[in-house]
Amino acid sequence: MKVLLVFAHPEPRSLNGSLRDVAIRELEAQGHEVRVSDLYADNWKSEIDRPDFPSLDHETPFQPSRASKAAFAAGQLTKDVTVEHEKLLWADTLILQFPLWWYTMPAILKGWVDRVYAYGFAYGVGEHSDAHWGDRFGEGTFKGKRAMLIVTTGGWQEHYSARGVNGPIDDLLFPINHGILYYPGYNVLPPFVAYRVDRIDEAGFEDIAERLRERMRTLSTTPPIPYRRQNGGDYLIPSLELRPGLGEPTATGFSLHLNGAETAG
Amino acid sequence: MKVLLVFAHPEPRSLNGSLRDVAIRELEAQGHEVRVSDLYADNWKSEIDRPDFPSLDHETPFQPSRASKAAFAAGQLTKDVTVEHEKLLWADTLILQFPLWWYTMPAILKGWVDRVYAYGFAYGVGEHSDAHWGDRFGEGTFKGKRAMLIVTTGGWQEHYSARGVNGPIDDLLFPINHGILYYPGYNVLPPFVAYRVDRIDEAGFEDIAERLRERMRTLSTTPPIPYRRQNGGDYLIPSLELRPGLGEPTATGFSLHLNGAETAG
Repeated sequence: MKVLLVFAHPEPRSLNGSLRDVAIRELEAQGHEVRVSDLYADNWKSEIDRPDFPSLDHETPFQPSRASKAAFAAGQLTKDVTVEHEKLLWADTLILQFPLWWYTMPAILKGWVDRVYAYGFAYGVGEHSDAHWGDRFGEGTFKGKRAMLIVTTGGWQEHYSARGVNGPIDDLLFPINHGILYYPGYNVLPPFVAYRVDRIDEAGFEDIAERLRERMRTLSTTPPIPYRRQNGGDYLIPSLELRPGLGEPTATGFSLHLNGAETAG
Repeated sequence: MKVLLVFAHPEPRSLNGSLRDVAIRELEAQGHEVRVSDLYADNWKSEIDRPDFPSLDHETPFQPSRASKAAFAAGQLTKDVTVEHEKLLWADTLILQFPLWWYTMPAILKGWVDRVYAYGFAYGVGEHSDAHWGDRFGEGTFKGKRAMLIVTTGGWQEHYSARGVNGPIDDLLFPINHGILYYPGYNVLPPFVAYRVDRIDEAGFEDIAERLRERMRTLSTTPPIPYRRQNGGDYLIPSLELRPGLGEPTATGFSLHLNGAETAG
C-alpha cells in the first residue's frame, strides 16, 4: 500500500511525534510505502486567501469556491497545493494525525483541508441531476481509497463516551470523518484515539503504541464505517434527506446535553 | 451592550461582508457599542507554535498547553493575543461570524480559538475536586456573557435538517457552541444561519438581512440554548458522564447516516 500521513503537531519530540514514528515504522515493516506531509515543519499556510489565486484579477471580489474552480481547471493552483494533490492521488490510504484541540483539528490542518480540497478536485465533482447530486459522500476523486484519523486528547475516554460531557467522540469526529473524508469518496476506517495523553508513563505509551501498530497492520482489512452512499437510493434528491422509514426518526445525539431532553425526547 | 464581532471571511465585498455591516449598523442603531476583529484584514496568524512563546527556552519540547499556562501566568503572551483578551473581557457579547467550510469554521478562525483561548484564561480555570471539575461548561471567565454564531452555507437548509445528509446543523455546530463558547462560560444563543448563499438575489439578501437585524435587536432577550451545567449535579465527577436517568439513553444523532442504523437503533 501507499500511505500518505498528514501530521499536524508543532513538536516532533511529543507523544504525537512518537506515535507518528511508530506508525511509519510499522507500515514500512509491513512493506508499505509511506509519505508524510508534516504541516508545521513545512510551514504550511493555513489561510485560503486571494494570494492563493494569483491569476484572479484585482477587480473581482474574491469568492473562494469560484476562484478555486477556475484555478484548478486552468492548472493555476499554487505549488504547495498541487504537491499535496500529487501525494493524495499517489496514495491509496490517507491518515490524518492530530491532537484534538477544542474538539476538532488544529487550525493548520483545517487550513490544509480548506486549501487542498479544491473545487473540481475534492468537491464540485460529477453531474447534478434528479438522481445524482454530484460525486460525493461515497463517490468522488478518492473512491476506493481508505482514510483514517489518529487523534490524541487530554480528556478522559469517559468524557468522550456516549453520555460524556464533551459529546461522543464519534459524533465530534463525524464532521471530519463524514464531511471531509467520506465526502470526496474515501472509505473511512474507525479512528484511532488515544485519551488522557498529558501525563503518560512509559508503560502507558507502550500500550498506546501497540494498539496503533495493530491498527497499522490491519489497515487494509479493517471494515470501514458503514456510511450511507448519497446517491445509492437512501436519500431523497434534491433535499438529500434520508428517506422516510430509514434510520431512527428521532435520533439527536447531542441533545443529551440539553436541559429538558429527558422530556423532549 | 458591548459587542465583539469576530469576522472570518477574506472578502469584504461578499455576502458575509454585507451581513457584517448589517449587523453592526443594527447594533449601533440600538445604542450598543461594537468592536470588530477582522481576522483576514488583520493578518491573523493561525498556527499556535513555539514563536508564540518567546520566553520558552530552546531545550524544552514545545507542549502547547504547558507553554500557554506559563506565558499567561507570567503575562508573556504575544501582543496580538492579549489584544483579543482585552476585547473579550471588554465585551459582554461575542459574535463569531464565518462561512461554513467543510462543516466547521475556516482555519483562520480556528487559529483564533487555538491561540486566544489560553490556559488560565479560557481553560485550566477553577478548582478540581470531587464535586467540581474546573470552571467550565457553564462557568468560567465568560460566565454571564452571551455569545452567538452567524454562519453562511452554500448547501440547502434541507441538507442540514434533522435527516439531511450533512447532519443536523445544530449537531455540526455543537463542538463550537458547546465546546468553544459554553466551555468558558458563555450563554450561547441559537445560531443565525443563512443557507444556499452562493446564488442570492437582492430580495433574497433583504430577507436574510431582515432576519439578522431581528436577531441583533433581540440579542439581550433571546433565551440561550439550555445546555446542562457540568458542575450543577447532572454529571458524575470525575467521569463527567450524564447521570443515569437523565436524557435519552440511546440518543445518537449522527448514526442516522450509518447503514443498518434502522436495525441497530
